[in-house]
Amino acid sequence: MENFTLQNPVRIEFGKDKEHYMGQYLSEYGIKHVLLAYGSERIKKEGLFDSVAKSLQRKGITFCELGGIVSNPLLSKVYEGIEMAQHNKVDAVLCVGGGSVLDSAKAIAAGALYEGDVWDFFLGKSFITQALPIFDIITLAATGSEMNCGAVVTNEKTQQKYFIQAPALFPKVSIINPYLQRSVSKAYLVYSASDVIAHCIEGYFTATTHPTLISKQIEAIITTIMETTEILIENPNDYDARAEFAWAATCALNGFTHVGVAGMNFPNHMIEHALSAICNIPHGAGLSIVMPAWMKWYCPKNEAQFTRFAKAIFGLESAEDGIDALTNWFDKIGTPTKFSHYAIEEKTLPEIVDNAADNDIYFGMDKLYTKEVIADILNKAW
Amino acid sequence: MENFTLQNPVRIEFGKDKEHYMGQYLSEYGIKHVLLAYGSERIKKEGLFDSVAKSLQRKGITFCELGGIVSNPLLSKVYEGIEMAQHNKVDAVLCVGGGSVLDSAKAIAAGALYEGDVWDFFLGKSFITQALPIFDIITLAATGSEMNCGAVVTNEKTQQKYFIQAPALFPKVSIINPYLQRSVSKAYLVYSASDVIAHCIEGYFTATTHPTLISKQIEAIITTIMETTEILIENPNDYDARAEFAWAATCALNGFTHVGVAGMNFPNHMIEHALSAICNIPHGAGLSIVMPAWMKWYCPKNEAQFTRFAKAIFGLESAEDGIDALTNWFDKIGTPTKFSHYAIEEKTLPEIVDNAADNDIYFGMDKLYTKEVIADILNKAW
Repeated sequence: MENFTLQNPVRIEFGKDKEHYMGQYLSEYGIKHVLLAYGSERIKKEGLFDSVAKSLQRKGITFCELGGIVSNPLLSKVYEGIEMAQHNKVDAVLCVGGGSVLDSAKAIAAGALYEGDVWDFFLGKSFITQALPIFDIITLAATGSEMNCGAVVTNEKTQQKYFIQAPALFPKVSIINPYLQRSVSKAYLVYSASDVIAHCIEGYFTATTHPTLISKQIEAIITTIMETTEILIENPNDYDARAEFAWAATCALNGFTHVGVAGMNFPNHMIEHALSAICNIPHGAGLSIVMPAWMKWYCPKNEAQFTRFAKAIFGLESAEDGIDALTNWFDKIGTPTKFSHYAIEEKTLPEIVDNAADNDIYFGMDKLYTKEVIADILNKAW
Repeated sequence: MENFTLQNPVRIEFGKDKEHYMGQYLSEYGIKHVLLAYGSERIKKEGLFDSVAKSLQRKGITFCELGGIVSNPLLSKVYEGIEMAQHNKVDAVLCVGGGSVLDSAKAIAAGALYEGDVWDFFLGKSFITQALPIFDIITLAATGSEMNCGAVVTNEKTQQKYFIQAPALFPKVSIINPYLQRSVSKAYLVYSASDVIAHCIEGYFTATTHPTLISKQIEAIITTIMETTEILIENPNDYDARAEFAWAATCALNGFTHVGVAGMNFPNHMIEHALSAICNIPHGAGLSIVMPAWMKWYCPKNEAQFTRFAKAIFGLESAEDGIDALTNWFDKIGTPTKFSHYAIEEKTLPEIVDNAADNDIYFGMDKLYTKEVIADILNKAW
């Protein structure tokens, strides 16, 4: 087990009706004026926007609105948010939405207190030392952003889907009300399942040291995600399944599943970021295409852990059978496992490969993933 | 899954050589003068005291010493520490020791900023709103105190073993260096295993709502504790086993294994606190005596979860077989499962029963555990 430092100060408020207390939580931190960031107009139709607005009003908290944040969130929108935050002199950023909205909110919170270009942080040209306080009501369980200090944004001009990470980006309070997630479409439910499983397997398979306890904790998350996904496909209103799915998603990327491991990295995310930067497909869908292909390629490098995976998750004996079983499960729930699902033309492949290879250094993988390797992996999913 | 609030701000510094940085960590929090609390002189013989003292000196941090804190830590010692902290105007309490030292340090930290009697907090007559900052180097993995905000102290005059809990009692920084725990005796290793398993099973069996994910996470901790205990009995110097044991102990009582559960309580601790308050036996040893007896008594009230336990931990089919298997495992590793181990006289039984029954209301169990019930449970271990 490797040395580690772990500190996760996020306050989680989990459960029914918690969104009605957002005004109270903000006021506990002395917040008077927020930028309220959201995605689609769905939150207005469903009454959530109103609930939050009333909760803020009760505590005398004013807000300005930044709507229209999309999946694979864009740098241009982050710039817009930073300008709005500065112009309105807000003292916090409040996200009401999924991981993309929260990631945008984090970039806005850091950018609002920075004199330079916020993209500097993504390129590693500058380091985040401060940010406006961040609060959120998370309406889609997938990215784990509600309990970590990372964010991913796409620079649409350069087609770079890059990330930032800094302690200042931990949300102060994250509200997870599973009931608010009941209207997530079946498609986004299964993409989310894929995203959470990807967060689980990256370290599980790539770490050169992986404590048994951490393997077991990850297996607990994966099997919970699989069981609850199947329940939710049948009955989207099953509150307990929705709640366990949501909490499992949070636990998959809050730091606790990565302690004590050595040498882990995020190759599936590295390749998928290229895929969604260029083709703009949902992140979770991209991951379920990449994962089976990557697993087949990577399996010989850590066969013992793949064999463990097959046994622990599916009760199967061989590493290969475990990979097949996961692929079949993705097919069964309806998240894509082949490029053909999106009719992505074969001529796009070199562009994806180039973009992913550029990500290799960015992800700190030291040219492990050459263009040849990436092409080899992607070809398995063609 | 029930609503919950979760926030655990403790910074964990885990691994080899971390104790050499304690001075640096303290200085990051602006600390200049600490009360250094410890237990036996073992830490002086083994050089740990010197390492810590040097680390503080390098950062110009001065300290006064409070040694001689014992297992089942005493209120009289806490009073002594409070007086020392106030007299020396320290600005933090630093614990170098096991859970008893840390629990004492927490009580001292709260008492030093309180005008009344610190025991008021234990009796619920007053609430902890502030405490001196707490830092620790934990030398025994068992109680989880290094990552929670609770503490247990025994009032030797009244024979009450009671607890306090407040956010102000979360340590700022906890150092867990598994290497420092290599010299824990075999006896205290197995008592610690029992203590951690007790932390795991209390909620697991007593909660009326228990999310599957939480059950799985607890099972991961229990099986890890069992596997690593067996390794450490054979080879106390196995670093990885020591590290996984230590981290599993921390995870068992840091709040994450109790989220979303409903109606849970701590009956084994309630009874054991009476036992060790009167007989002054090691807490973990008391728990391994109480647990099998309590499990037999409680099993019919939640047979499904006991059946799950039998399968998940031992691969067995029946609830009863699971209880027997745990009892046999305690016997195998050498932590006691019967009162006869300590030659506690039968005439002591009514005294233990009375003390435990007093704890019933204190533990918030609303007279579930009458004297008759407690006697019934204890008789199973006689």
